[in-house]
Amino acid sequence: MEKPMDRTKQQLGSYASMLETALAGYLPRHPSPEQTVADAMAYSLLSGGKRIRGALTLAFYRLFREDVRPALPYAGALEMVHAYSLIHDDLPCMDDDDLRRGKPSCHIAYGEATALLAGDALLTLAFETMTDPCHAGAFAPGAVVKVVRCLAAAAGCAGMIDGQMIDLYQEGKPASEELLKRTYAKKTGALIAAAAQMGCVLAGAGPEETEVAESYCEKIGLAFQIVDDLLDVTGDARVLGKPIGSDIENKKCTYVSIYGLDAARQKVDQLNQEAKASLQKLKGDTSFLASLADLLAGRQN
Amino acid sequence: MEKPMDRTKQQLGSYASMLETALAGYLPRHPSPEQTVADAMAYSLLSGGKRIRGALTLAFYRLFREDVRPALPYAGALEMVHAYSLIHDDLPCMDDDDLRRGKPSCHIAYGEATALLAGDALLTLAFETMTDPCHAGAFAPGAVVKVVRCLAAAAGCAGMIDGQMIDLYQEGKPASEELLKRTYAKKTGALIAAAAQMGCVLAGAGPEETEVAESYCEKIGLAFQIVDDLLDVTGDARVLGKPIGSDIENKKCTYVSIYGLDAARQKVDQLNQEAKASLQKLKGDTSFLASLADLLAGRQN
Repeated sequence: MEKPMDRTKQQLGSYASMLETALAGYLPRHPSPEQTVADAMAYSLLSGGKRIRGALTLAFYRLFREDVRPALPYAGALEMVHAYSLIHDDLPCMDDDDLRRGKPSCHIAYGEATALLAGDALLTLAFETMTDPCHAGAFAPGAVVKVVRCLAAAAGCAGMIDGQMIDLYQEGKPASEELLKRTYAKKTGALIAAAAQMGCVLAGAGPEETEVAESYCEKIGLAFQIVDDLLDVTGDARVLGKPIGSDIENKKCTYVSIYGLDAARQKVDQLNQEAKASLQKLKGDTSFLASLADLLAGRQN
Repeated sequence: MEKPMDRTKQQLGSYASMLETALAGYLPRHPSPEQTVADAMAYSLLSGGKRIRGALTLAFYRLFREDVRPALPYAGALEMVHAYSLIHDDLPCMDDDDLRRGKPSCHIAYGEATALLAGDALLTLAFETMTDPCHAGAFAPGAVVKVVRCLAAAAGCAGMIDGQMIDLYQEGKPASEELLKRTYAKKTGALIAAAAQMGCVLAGAGPEETEVAESYCEKIGLAFQIVDDLLDVTGDARVLGKPIGSDIENKKCTYVSIYGLDAARQKVDQLNQEAKASLQKLKGDTSFLASLADLLAGRQN
């Protein structure tokens, strides 16, 4: 008999593969000899990854609509913004990471200037894709304006960028729980919450439903980050695809460094239960979303 | 008696000062101690400059509507994209310029990581501003979707970023007129053409009028670049606010290096005449736009 977790992995894989195909189609095709930026964009955007953000948009959209295909460009836009943030995060002046998902980072593979421009281009392409008449035509223009605003706000200087800035700013400084929560809420949480919101807005969900979706995403987003902290201590470098212990080495303030392993693990469980409980306020079939929360809370990489 | 050119400078100055005030209001206000990104954004965005792009949006909007204020957030978004491109262009991995408009570049003043994020944040803020309900409410949502698409396409990898890439790629290589034209059309021309298009779309102009506006902008955009090439040879460093001769030093292929000073000057005059002639197809009062073309063609900095 098929286990529920296998079905969830299968569904997540199916969303990821739909996204992979769609994303390849949104990328620019330049026959010119200067296509390096286009190559670097494809290298980073199509390098796999779990596609959690895009899958969340599709899953929430599907609670209200049968066919998820019209939402693909918007789920794809989220993945573009995520990919751009990783490229810029890895640059020498930021985290200076040579590896990303076990492969050379974009600037190692293509050089710093091209990586910088590829990140810029992916961020811009997200907005171009969302407003492409071929995609936007499926929705009321007002809904398109709303989701563009939602993604821009989540990615911008009151969202993801603020999170990156606090992260840079606090490295090596004494731990502060308040600041850590803000960093987590903004650096990863903002984009994850936007994923749910975008799926709901595009599907025409009401404000209460959208609020529940955002609350679910806030919980799983924070749990996701604490699992990252846990894996940096307890994970297997081979399964993770990156060395462990980097937080301790960089004297980074994490949930584990503040609360210890046990309390951090308990916090993940609590957030996971809360996320799943919030789903009960929604009418559609939320079994995938509930099971996804379990999958992310128990992940090993 | 007031000369026409004085009136033009005055009008341009009035647009620039409206924009300066509006831009200050669109910037984030963070009371947090990590406001460095917000400071760096303000430093680069509010550092003066001619505001040609924003002024073009306002001027074309005004051909069709009396009150330009509703168009300010969109003219402002263009200026944000322009400011972001300058910050990233100045970074060590790109042109490595320490000075911008006679002041330390953003990464010299705030460090590389903050400058990178400030650029990212300004690009994102452009899209956030355009879709802010406070601003977008003045227009049909379909028009807002169109101008977002227009700006994203002009700034993206088939527009400005492609121009920057060709520019990086060709430095020190043998001159090619074709490539130079493409670089100029994309690196600066795309955003200038978008300025006109955005003003027309927001004002509800027809496709023929929008096409004329774009054609005018293509001409003045190319002329603008050739004047840059000319000033790098014949300009006064004190008036320009930057050292001259950098193109020759960097073995850069420019209009002057291919055609010589006289032919480059003639090309500027020809483009200027063509730009002004195209305005005659428009109905409203185009005197400011005609005079602006003259002003830009004859500028000394």
